[in-house]
Amino acid sequence: MDRTIGVDVGGTQTRVAAVEGGHLRVRRAFPTRGIREVEDAIRVVLAAAGWPKPGTIGVGAPAPLDMRAGRILTCPNLPGWEKVGVREELGRAFGCPVYLANDATCAAIGELAFGGRGRDFVYVTWSTGIGGGVVAGGEVVWGATGAAGEIGHIVLQAEGPPCACGKKGCLEALAGGASLARRGSEALGVPLSAQDLVRLAQAGDPVARDLVLTACQAVGQGLAIVHEVLEPERIVLGGGITRSWEFLGPHVLFALQGMARTPPQVTLTPLGDDAGLLGAAVLPAYIPNEWRGPQT
Amino acid sequence: MDRTIGVDVGGTQTRVAAVEGGHLRVRRAFPTRGIREVEDAIRVVLAAAGWPKPGTIGVGAPAPLDMRAGRILTCPNLPGWEKVGVREELGRAFGCPVYLANDATCAAIGELAFGGRGRDFVYVTWSTGIGGGVVAGGEVVWGATGAAGEIGHIVLQAEGPPCACGKKGCLEALAGGASLARRGSEALGVPLSAQDLVRLAQAGDPVARDLVLTACQAVGQGLAIVHEVLEPERIVLGGGITRSWEFLGPHVLFALQGMARTPPQVTLTPLGDDAGLLGAAVLPAYIPNEWRGPQT
Repeated sequence: MDRTIGVDVGGTQTRVAAVEGGHLRVRRAFPTRGIREVEDAIRVVLAAAGWPKPGTIGVGAPAPLDMRAGRILTCPNLPGWEKVGVREELGRAFGCPVYLANDATCAAIGELAFGGRGRDFVYVTWSTGIGGGVVAGGEVVWGATGAAGEIGHIVLQAEGPPCACGKKGCLEALAGGASLARRGSEALGVPLSAQDLVRLAQAGDPVARDLVLTACQAVGQGLAIVHEVLEPERIVLGGGITRSWEFLGPHVLFALQGMARTPPQVTLTPLGDDAGLLGAAVLPAYIPNEWRGPQT
Repeated sequence: MDRTIGVDVGGTQTRVAAVEGGHLRVRRAFPTRGIREVEDAIRVVLAAAGWPKPGTIGVGAPAPLDMRAGRILTCPNLPGWEKVGVREELGRAFGCPVYLANDATCAAIGELAFGGRGRDFVYVTWSTGIGGGVVAGGEVVWGATGAAGEIGHIVLQAEGPPCACGKKGCLEALAGGASLARRGSEALGVPLSAQDLVRLAQAGDPVARDLVLTACQAVGQGLAIVHEVLEPERIVLGGGITRSWEFLGPHVLFALQGMARTPPQVTLTPLGDDAGLLGAAVLPAYIPNEWRGPQT
């Protein structure tokens, strides 16, 4: 039986789903808190699906992690999750194998399994943070510890603004949602979300416009870099900020096209917010063997 | 029988070798000219190896190319090779299958087959130009048309110096050998090679030092980007400029470490100038099926 629970722990929302035979049966979403709230949500989803227990659990999280141990390391985007042993906690609670991976890599797996965007693409999420996952020739590119695809942390400005990761001038510090909200609030003197700032930019506010268009140019530069390093058939974009793609897209693509030698193909994910959730649910089928155990 | 001819067409030197059963039998090097000179060199190598004809020919070239057709497209680093049908010309001359690929990808294949540097690395060549090839989980990452790994053309400065590719602020424009030679010659008023400029920097000339250290910082930034995007177990460096690694290395690594969240492993290729040549020779074993034919 092929019954898995997928968990997508986001910087803002956590999503939990029951997936069976490649189909999403039940889904719940709630504001991100701690591992206990994830346990509770899994119980609710199991009850709604009518399953006594899950076959496996796959979890995606936006933090540096130890895949082999199924444990979060640090968590600049995820207060309260530092050093949480996700495999240990959920394995004990539900008595099944638990796998943990980077959330953007999960989203790339979701695209590969459900998105119909081919076998050669980079998935980029533009949200609270900026992350990515790489699929080449139908295979997930994991990297040495599963941290490949971290395009939010490519340094674009050696002396740029500080990033939550401790470096300076990262793409995420220039264009991530948390950074945009913070810098927009400072510049305009009122508390703003990234979406608020984008709306103000769209309405013509010059300060908001300057911040948002600079962010678009940085994202375009980042995508151009991904295009030169990997030459994917396609770059697939997701994440909350891309909901304003109609306004932002032309600015991103203008920068991208000026910095790429051949025209990259860029599309929005057809899976919306579910890419990472679906990818987490099928993570057990994709995770390399050396990162599977030991399970409780 | 497993007799292949490898050809590495460099911006300065061309190398031709006869390889049998994974061993290099005969090698010749000469200043890069045109396809006729390559034909002549292959005949010389065949005669020296005592082979009536090659089983296959693999060619690496530092230019955008059509892998399926075995044809060079444009060639900013390779005067006289524009639109040369390498497969057609050499296939007609020697009556065997001919494969053509990016030279830095060939060098990555050489590292994979002969270098003993593991199955998860990025090969970066710092030479007349700057290029790269990506190996993930033991598989070559080719990209949509075989142009993956072009780290010389990641844009680091949107308003930086012009690059031979037509863009501005590419890593190659900031740190490639041809660019260093040109900018050094202009700044110092005498014709200089990149090696001359590095020697002057090492001897303490302030103008040369400024150019060379800025180039080192750009290379460090480029390697940090590769590390974040791919998280390879190792970055393997080759190419003529790395002969001065004892002087340049500490400056590159200092920049790299400041721009990477986890410490990348960087090593020089153990294959020296032969990485690309050996990789070209075994290219027929690695090239994807969809790019093999039609052969003459």
